[in-house]
Amino acid sequence: FDIAAAEAARARQAHLTKPPGALGRLETLAEEFCGWRGDARAEIVSAQALVFAGNHGVCAQGVNPFPQEVTAQMVANFEHGGAAINQLCRVAGARLSVIPLDLDRPTADLSEGPAMTEAETLAAMRAGADAVDPAADILILGEMGIGNSTVAAALAHGLLGGEAGLWVGRGTGADEDGLARKERVVARAAERHGGLTPLEALAALGGREQAAICGAVLAARAARIPVILDGYICTAAALPLHAADPALLAHCWVGHLSREPGHRRLVEALGKTPILDFDMALGEGSGAALALSILRAALACHNGMATFAEAGVSDG
Amino acid sequence: FDIAAAEAARARQAHLTKPPGALGRLETLAEEFCGWRGDARAEIVSAQALVFAGNHGVCAQGVNPFPQEVTAQMVANFEHGGAAINQLCRVAGARLSVIPLDLDRPTADLSEGPAMTEAETLAAMRAGADAVDPAADILILGEMGIGNSTVAAALAHGLLGGEAGLWVGRGTGADEDGLARKERVVARAAERHGGLTPLEALAALGGREQAAICGAVLAARAARIPVILDGYICTAAALPLHAADPALLAHCWVGHLSREPGHRRLVEALGKTPILDFDMALGEGSGAALALSILRAALACHNGMATFAEAGVSDG
Repeated sequence: FDIAAAEAARARQAHLTKPPGALGRLETLAEEFCGWRGDARAEIVSAQALVFAGNHGVCAQGVNPFPQEVTAQMVANFEHGGAAINQLCRVAGARLSVIPLDLDRPTADLSEGPAMTEAETLAAMRAGADAVDPAADILILGEMGIGNSTVAAALAHGLLGGEAGLWVGRGTGADEDGLARKERVVARAAERHGGLTPLEALAALGGREQAAICGAVLAARAARIPVILDGYICTAAALPLHAADPALLAHCWVGHLSREPGHRRLVEALGKTPILDFDMALGEGSGAALALSILRAALACHNGMATFAEAGVSDG
Repeated sequence: FDIAAAEAARARQAHLTKPPGALGRLETLAEEFCGWRGDARAEIVSAQALVFAGNHGVCAQGVNPFPQEVTAQMVANFEHGGAAINQLCRVAGARLSVIPLDLDRPTADLSEGPAMTEAETLAAMRAGADAVDPAADILILGEMGIGNSTVAAALAHGLLGGEAGLWVGRGTGADEDGLARKERVVARAAERHGGLTPLEALAALGGREQAAICGAVLAARAARIPVILDGYICTAAALPLHAADPALLAHCWVGHLSREPGHRRLVEALGKTPILDFDMALGEGSGAALALSILRAALACHNGMATFAEAGVSDG
């Protein structure tokens, strides 16, 4: 983070033709972006969106009403441009890539044993890191994977504790029975996999798209690319990095507050304030892509507005 | 409002490739837009933004730290493209027109007598109505006028009651003394102008840009054009219409929740939930223009997504 660039950005904001602070969070978004990019007038020329997809052995526990084939069907839908994330990336001006991760080879059932080996975990992290375009100015992250709201709850419960029920929600549409099943599965998983290091927790309680998100977050950090995480599942995927060192997520915003009840508690644990709140619960990076439009607006004001002196406006 | 179009839009949402309701408020925004436009697949081809500017006699009471000349200076800044609203309209794809209303002839001091005559009020309403392009698909409304957060507080206090202090905020940067002055002025104005009809209240406690906003809201309604109001001042400007008949604002969203403390109470009185909340307090239509990007995203999903059948995705 380039403190001088962020401070120069803040100094510029004070001279723009508006009362001080009147653009609220748009001003801090612009300042933070400039700090990470190391440029007091940083712009978004290239925005990249990555959606990682994986399948999960925990679906054997009946945690999701959709069949696992839907993951591959939705990947095909992404590739044909028919999903929400396609429309949202088009509107927000982001280049979308979808990365399916061994969909025909689901992870192991995390309630029975570790979901992944260390080698599988590292391979998925590597796939995530390799997908990041180092020339991008901003990275949007999302995920798809039938059953992965249970994975998110398992990671959150395993790494942050609390009652299992606090981390479980309806996901793609679980009924009361489904919700109770998810809670039991998540509680059992955390009992089985206690006292793990962050990487061990990612392997035991996560999945391939979760590991890929961790890899992409790290690669973006190395390239000084700020990241917009999506909702509950995407934020929980990055949680092992936070457990290793909270500073590893300093360059990440949370795009929106999900309808999933655990998300509010999760973002509080990370010390993050989501940019948007539209009662959404879709995944795919949808909330992150929406937030990109807000960041673009913030930077348009930051870079495009006249100063009081330029405009000949009295500054009080 | 075309109930059949809104219901057809809702039925379409249920078939799109996402769990039911997963796009949250984006779904209801799209459905409401389709209802007002009378088309289950309505789109935004033409978005109009109108910013009305006026000057206010109440500035004689020292309610604002900026000199009144800033209103005309900011209008020039709008015309030269240097203000926040210019950048935000560019990003959101809205055509901006700025309408200065007799800036060299401020209204009378509303704490000493009625701000405007009935004829002045009707002329400003007419100017607002005439500015609306009947071919637009959506209308963004904003305002500029040094001193007009005091006007907003006077309208809110006069029409909704409560303690004067509940409706007063820092506006463009009032200090403690300025805040106390605003509160006294607003209390005195409401005492002086009690028991008025909505039109009389608009004349006595409002200003030209407030009347123009009322005129534009009515003209948009007649043309079935949904409206996005901006923050505190813009919402308060439309309050006389609500006092006349709450249904007159049914086609209006509130773009964002302003930092001005009275705005939350005001939107609750109107039964509205602002689309965004970024701690902004700028005016100019800035929060409404930001919200337009969200509406565009909502309609991109509504019109562009594949259905389960089209995409060959199992729907559970």
